[in-house]
Amino acid sequence: MTMNDTFLKACRGEKTDYTPMWLMRQAGRYLPEYQKVRGSVSFLELCKSPELCVEVTLQPIDILGVDAAILFSDILIPMEAMGLPLEFHEGRGPVFPKTVRDRAALDRLIVPDPGETMGFVMETIRLLRKELRVPLIGFAGAPFTCATYLIEGGSSKVFWETKKMMYTAPELFHGLMEKITETTSRYLLAQARAGAQALQLFDSWAGILAPADFAEFALPYAKRIIADLQQTGLPIIYFANNGATLLEYSAASGADVIGLDWRINIGDAIKRVGNRAVQGNIDPFALLLPKEKLKERIKRLLDDAREAKGHIFNLGHGIHQFTPPEQARFAVDTVHELSSR
Amino acid sequence: MTMNDTFLKACRGEKTDYTPMWLMRQAGRYLPEYQKVRGSVSFLELCKSPELCVEVTLQPIDILGVDAAILFSDILIPMEAMGLPLEFHEGRGPVFPKTVRDRAALDRLIVPDPGETMGFVMETIRLLRKELRVPLIGFAGAPFTCATYLIEGGSSKVFWETKKMMYTAPELFHGLMEKITETTSRYLLAQARAGAQALQLFDSWAGILAPADFAEFALPYAKRIIADLQQTGLPIIYFANNGATLLEYSAASGADVIGLDWRINIGDAIKRVGNRAVQGNIDPFALLLPKEKLKERIKRLLDDAREAKGHIFNLGHGIHQFTPPEQARFAVDTVHELSSR
Repeated sequence: MTMNDTFLKACRGEKTDYTPMWLMRQAGRYLPEYQKVRGSVSFLELCKSPELCVEVTLQPIDILGVDAAILFSDILIPMEAMGLPLEFHEGRGPVFPKTVRDRAALDRLIVPDPGETMGFVMETIRLLRKELRVPLIGFAGAPFTCATYLIEGGSSKVFWETKKMMYTAPELFHGLMEKITETTSRYLLAQARAGAQALQLFDSWAGILAPADFAEFALPYAKRIIADLQQTGLPIIYFANNGATLLEYSAASGADVIGLDWRINIGDAIKRVGNRAVQGNIDPFALLLPKEKLKERIKRLLDDAREAKGHIFNLGHGIHQFTPPEQARFAVDTVHELSSR
Repeated sequence: MTMNDTFLKACRGEKTDYTPMWLMRQAGRYLPEYQKVRGSVSFLELCKSPELCVEVTLQPIDILGVDAAILFSDILIPMEAMGLPLEFHEGRGPVFPKTVRDRAALDRLIVPDPGETMGFVMETIRLLRKELRVPLIGFAGAPFTCATYLIEGGSSKVFWETKKMMYTAPELFHGLMEKITETTSRYLLAQARAGAQALQLFDSWAGILAPADFAEFALPYAKRIIADLQQTGLPIIYFANNGATLLEYSAASGADVIGLDWRINIGDAIKRVGNRAVQGNIDPFALLLPKEKLKERIKRLLDDAREAKGHIFNLGHGIHQFTPPEQARFAVDTVHELSSR
């Protein structure tokens, strides 16, 4: 089996024959093949069944022709392992019936042994490595994002409880961040040992923070994890969603690759992140454009990204469930064709 | 009656004795006095009762000591006047049971005469001007933001229908924007004639757009309204929420004042908007900080804004319903005290 290492090279800023591409949430609901698997199990059951995780992780590789696989899992799996029961409600997303809003709840959280409590993730990684001919990305939620779920008890529109804790009980907030950080470091190190070839930290809710608050309440913890991971030698990707005003901080996280959502011109972002590779950043809904227009947009993006130290083409956010898979396939083919050197 | 014109001077970039302040949604649910009025009428009834609108508009002026009043109303009032029934559901926000997703629905929309269909707004303005000793801000939603509500049928998390129309039926989308733009221009001109002393365009959802899409689908329409309003001689404020990457475009809108949400450092924003005044931008939830810390944060913001052509202190978004009014009052007093020249 020949390994397609274009993605890893781009992460490291090495020359590649073409711009590699993968899609956030490429294993997901827009694929009928995924829906079929999900038809027989709940989302959490799926996350905890290595064979099924392998199946859905592999689906988009051939269907779309992407240059990397990403472990099928959820950022809240390690939060559940810290001792908080997790539920997924159809149409409402993740729910933690018990939240962390006081010292007693914080004290009850454990820092779990990842091998013992999340062995199914490591097993998925080991099985995938036997099958894959593209690199496998492992991942975790960044501590700030994970903390919002534990504090709010699920998703939120305004994150009142999170900010209330930050502003009125900062010691409690930092205490929670410490525990999540330790958990996340151990979890990602375990993924690396199991065979992950790159690691991405998703900071999905970083964008709700003013830059000064990001620097005080979120960045130091992401930084610490990235420092811990450097011993693995693997490329690290840090993605602060809606983080256009946080880019200089994101670059200071120490990550090799900075993920970009679609709200910023990639050329402007590249100037700001300095000597780092970038990943992104087409609007996921732009996959709906008629093919000629989509091609034009991809060309413009590739042109704008020319000065990048390395560029991994991706969406600026997860692919939407109603996206026709053939449009995603067309985008991948077009990126490969237009960037061929 | 002496008029406090500090706010108007700051909008025009003239020297002021101190930094003026008002709060987005200052007439709202965080005030027990407002809750009392709302207890006896629905939200829409309130919007359509000039006497009650006057009462709630006036409440924060004395309670908080702010330097401007903003008309109590809703950005969707003129959308209803275009012919689409509007409902407000408790806990869910605005709902348009009929949406605009095809040519027939677009053709049914009218461009209403604001005096005839929204006379209650003009009456509110006329009544307020007799009472107020601070300037009165009139407002409307910017066309892009209004369009999202008509297309989605209410609020949305991902704006799938809006972007689907933009990307797959751009002529329909632009047709809708044309009609909304014409309606909004007429509506704001009528507010000016009734006595509004400044006009704000709220582009609450501009931040979901990639910069190139904002330039193509949203900005031209905001620009056209602002050009129409220039005949009034009133200061125009344009606020593109979550628009840190759109600031150069916002400045090109022609507005005198650029509103800023809390996600960007105000000093960085000032460098980017050039010769315009700015309005903002403390995180609304920072009003929860202990007084000493809140004061420090206000001081930092005032320092960072020193190079502004003009600065109106405001929150980066609407005040949250659970904010203690005395904290808001403390913020206003602190801004006045620390900025006194």
